[in-house]
Amino acid sequence: MAHVLGQNQYGKAENRIVRVYRDSTRHEIKDLNVSVALQGEFEDVHLTGSNANCLPTDTTKNTVFAFAKEHGIESAEAFGITLARHFVDNTERGVVHSARIRIEEYTWNRIKTPDNTSRFIGSEEVGHSFVRDGGETRTTEIVYDGETVQVISGLKDLVVMNTTNSEFWGYIKDKYTTLQEAYDRILATQVTARWKYSYSGREDEAQPNWNRSYQHVRRHMLEAFAETYSYSLQQTLHAMGTRVLNNRAEVDEVRLELPNKHHFLVDLSPFDLKNENEVYYAADRMYGLIEGTVHRDGVTPVIPVV
Amino acid sequence: MAHVLGQNQYGKAENRIVRVYRDSTRHEIKDLNVSVALQGEFEDVHLTGSNANCLPTDTTKNTVFAFAKEHGIESAEAFGITLARHFVDNTERGVVHSARIRIEEYTWNRIKTPDNTSRFIGSEEVGHSFVRDGGETRTTEIVYDGETVQVISGLKDLVVMNTTNSEFWGYIKDKYTTLQEAYDRILATQVTARWKYSYSGREDEAQPNWNRSYQHVRRHMLEAFAETYSYSLQQTLHAMGTRVLNNRAEVDEVRLELPNKHHFLVDLSPFDLKNENEVYYAADRMYGLIEGTVHRDGVTPVIPVV
Amino acid sequence: MAHVLGQNQYGKAENRIVRVYRDSTRHEIKDLNVSVALQGEFEDVHLTGSNANCLPTDTTKNTVFAFAKEHGIESAEAFGITLARHFVDNTERGVVHSARIRIEEYTWNRIKTPDNTSRFIGSEEVGHSFVRDGGETRTTEIVYDGETVQVISGLKDLVVMNTTNSEFWGYIKDKYTTLQEAYDRILATQVTARWKYSYSGREDEAQPNWNRSYQHVRRHMLEAFAETYSYSLQQTLHAMGTRVLNNRAEVDEVRLELPNKHHFLVDLSPFDLKNENEVYYAADRMYGLIEGTVHRDGVTPVIPVV
Amino acid sequence: MAHVLGQNQYGKAENRIVRVYRDSTRHEIKDLNVSVALQGEFEDVHLTGSNANCLPTDTTKNTVFAFAKEHGIESAEAFGITLARHFVDNTERGVVHSARIRIEEYTWNRIKTPDNTSRFIGSEEVGHSFVRDGGETRTTEIVYDGETVQVISGLKDLVVMNTTNSEFWGYIKDKYTTLQEAYDRILATQVTARWKYSYSGREDEAQPNWNRSYQHVRRHMLEAFAETYSYSLQQTLHAMGTRVLNNRAEVDEVRLELPNKHHFLVDLSPFDLKNENEVYYAADRMYGLIEGTVHRDGVTPVIPVV
Repeated sequence: MAHVLGQNQYGKAENRIVRVYRDSTRHEIKDLNVSVALQGEFEDVHLTGSNANCLPTDTTKNTVFAFAKEHGIESAEAFGITLARHFVDNTERGVVHSARIRIEEYTWNRIKTPDNTSRFIGSEEVGHSFVRDGGETRTTEIVYDGETVQVISGLKDLVVMNTTNSEFWGYIKDKYTTLQEAYDRILATQVTARWKYSYSGREDEAQPNWNRSYQHVRRHMLEAFAETYSYSLQQTLHAMGTRVLNNRAEVDEVRLELPNKHHFLVDLSPFDLKNENEVYYAADRMYGLIEGTVHRDGVTPVIPVV
Repeated sequence: MAHVLGQNQYGKAENRIVRVYRDSTRHEIKDLNVSVALQGEFEDVHLTGSNANCLPTDTTKNTVFAFAKEHGIESAEAFGITLARHFVDNTERGVVHSARIRIEEYTWNRIKTPDNTSRFIGSEEVGHSFVRDGGETRTTEIVYDGETVQVISGLKDLVVMNTTNSEFWGYIKDKYTTLQEAYDRILATQVTARWKYSYSGREDEAQPNWNRSYQHVRRHMLEAFAETYSYSLQQTLHAMGTRVLNNRAEVDEVRLELPNKHHFLVDLSPFDLKNENEVYYAADRMYGLIEGTVHRDGVTPVIPVV
Repeated sequence: MAHVLGQNQYGKAENRIVRVYRDSTRHEIKDLNVSVALQGEFEDVHLTGSNANCLPTDTTKNTVFAFAKEHGIESAEAFGITLARHFVDNTERGVVHSARIRIEEYTWNRIKTPDNTSRFIGSEEVGHSFVRDGGETRTTEIVYDGETVQVISGLKDLVVMNTTNSEFWGYIKDKYTTLQEAYDRILATQVTARWKYSYSGREDEAQPNWNRSYQHVRRHMLEAFAETYSYSLQQTLHAMGTRVLNNRAEVDEVRLELPNKHHFLVDLSPFDLKNENEVYYAADRMYGLIEGTVHRDGVTPVIPVV
Repeated sequence: MAHVLGQNQYGKAENRIVRVYRDSTRHEIKDLNVSVALQGEFEDVHLTGSNANCLPTDTTKNTVFAFAKEHGIESAEAFGITLARHFVDNTERGVVHSARIRIEEYTWNRIKTPDNTSRFIGSEEVGHSFVRDGGETRTTEIVYDGETVQVISGLKDLVVMNTTNSEFWGYIKDKYTTLQEAYDRILATQVTARWKYSYSGREDEAQPNWNRSYQHVRRHMLEAFAETYSYSLQQTLHAMGTRVLNNRAEVDEVRLELPNKHHFLVDLSPFDLKNENEVYYAADRMYGLIEGTVHRDGVTPVIPVV
């Protein structure tokens, strides 16, 4: 046969796991969506119908749940590294050559109720009651190939808006251009970000504080979005990426996907009303889509274009 | 013809409007999704093809955007009342007999950046930069029939979880029952709530402080969810509804729809692990769905079952 | 307590069941999404925490799956009637007063492969291989209160388009009207339809042929949509409803929800191009939403407005 | 600055265009969702705020709509090639180095009505009335870099099921394995496929018949799915890919993503019922996810892993 089996991988996707810690009356929870993908010696599975080299996707699912008990979940990144190492290092006959673990993490906040034990009006957290934070989803992707660990973390669905300090003009005008130049427009986007850590999983290498790093990267992106006087969404993208690199030594590369969530000024002149940048129509589609990578000089960027 | 045209209505749905207030450097925004539905003398539109009585849906859309400028948007409820009154009272020849305005409101928080002007570490809000709160959506439905205004406000997609203080046992066991009784389970739900205000739009009647009322109703539901030791989701539902009625005199009726977002304890015994209420699988479907109304005695409930 | 527990109901929602018939090599499948809601003597469940009257939602789920084996699934309607009757008639101490079964049905077509046994080019169905028809979803809702069965069937997500034979003009022009009259426009909508059968479940009453009736109702709606020269979407709605009533004696009432999926003619004049009703932009939101009921004279309409 | 701007691109995404051909009373329609992404000399746009090299996303949108008139839409592929060539070849000063056009295509079928002009019962198509085929979406991606055109077409959301002829056994059993071997199971999946054409856009090269090729590739995948007696979803994937390569010379490489849409046999034994592969629960999540590429020997595979 003149056909070749190329890249292939498999595993159980979207294992929805909630891990509760009950060590005190103040419970802690981790809420993850874990997807496993394995590469290796799977030619026979495709070609001959022999599953002798196939670790069932069901087993990969069981492993996720069992590891939540055995190893706990301190962070999505650390949990993913432990899983990836296991599938490559411990599967029999070394048939798994590489494992990719993708995790989405959902955030929960504590519900607060009035503190009736205090003389003064206050509030206290209920130790076992949570309300889900509906904002951005935290993401990570771990790849381990038997030697090196690669960690690309990120977030998605972080929706932000500047009501001013955004212009767009001076662009190419060709025969299909009708856009009017804008000197004060709304700039809104739904941030998808991925950033690669320099951490590579060497034995002598300490893992970063993943949770702390996430909070800081997120904060720097928000601050850069808010503080950049913008002449294009591209410029804002670049400011967000460089702000992260300037402030977080553990990050080597940042890639952002920023849809331009258009807010069109409504023409109120037929009703004898002046619209002084007050009333906008928020459009769904079409949207500009701006994507880009910023990386440290000398580092080979690896975050793929999607 | 032996056929009758029954209930009918029409209008422009999902007008996505963003209103910006720029009165100071600290901008304010309102982000709404407004749907209009009109009832009235529309038989000819259906039967003869004459549109003489038809106010175009496009006009209802224009009105929404124009009113955002003319009247402003202090709250979704007040804005909806103004719109509903307009369509009934001002459409020519009184052909619109009743108007229903439904509004979804999305919340935005301010982005904060480090306060570099302060000697001490602090943070300050950026006046024109916002991050969308991805949590629950605020809702309201205004109906005006030329005489009375009815306001049913609510929220949806408020996801909450108790990691303990929930039991379920002592239920009917028939031949199809296999469920094991539970003495300590996770209770999680995605709250959809609607509550009716006693406000009816009489000329001498002051409108409630809608925004303040919303915050309080939401808070009372969260507190009741957190503080109720629950023997069924029904019991929690009832506690949430009565807590609102007990504390908010302006509300007459509360209806809740609570899907039981099941978290199943994973059986780790095949792996020689004990799962002491620590590792759960969060299921998508099927789910229990618990719905109910609590209302003041003597008040006729009006919030429809969906 | 001055508060009253009003309408309440509960049950297991979205039981995703696939039933396979293997009586010959030509398999048959039914693919349903079944939701159960029970009303009855559930005050204690809400008020005291006693579940003595509570049939667990888990049991209602088990019943759905067991009945698929015990009674089979000839049609969603017949299956729903059997389920609803069971919950009301057989639950202990008569605590269930009314049961509502909602079902979505997904259609599958057979995969055909070339018929190599035929001298002529032909194709034959593979007896066990199916491809899902991604078009409309068939729906039904059965309510049984111990005496009467009510069947409201329907469909959703049937997307249709006429590229001509649609006008819209002669409407009210008020100060907020800017819409231009249209003498040849695209008319497109996503049909949601519900129709009530006269069948009431009396002992001596034969059930209609539900599957056949569904096919005919669907066909009549499509034909009416295609054949109506339309002056408004309301007129098309009315034509669709009356066509069903005129042709299907078993149906008493039809309700339609028709979003006007706007297709806007793109202005190509800046590029020196004439757009002779050839190039359209298909908008997502906002959309007109037209809803209406047509029923036989003398019949009380019951399909609720949503 | 020690930071480098890496891969970046931008354009207008999801231009929803409907093109109507009215050359006879039998209209034809094309319904596309077109996304444009441009790469080139955009450093200044990111770094200095100068937009002198920026062709606005709005212009790319206008171009899509104008080209639908100027060049027509015979197929998504031909339309995409024309667009991609334009952006690279015609943008001023050659600042666009590469253009990627992604298109989703939605299929519509004609509505048929009874043919009343025929003596025999028949049906005829209405020339201007269509019902959307809700099945799979056709996709294509065109990349043009100034020299070579690369065409990767595909489909998504093609849902298929075999009710028998699927087994899974003989796999690795490790300490986390609990799965029972299966000798007759349902195999269902939602096909996402991409295939690369050998066409490279040389001047002397004829374009394939894209529409015809699509129909054949789709048919071969369906037939391979139906006719393969399967020992794993991997084996089915491989059979689908090789069937396409064996039959379609214009295709070089096929990549498939096949979620294993699990149908779990429901345990009816607690109800004294035997489930002889008749009653299944269709699960949403978790799901196995099987991905793989098959390509001709000697061809370098290019379809990216996602």
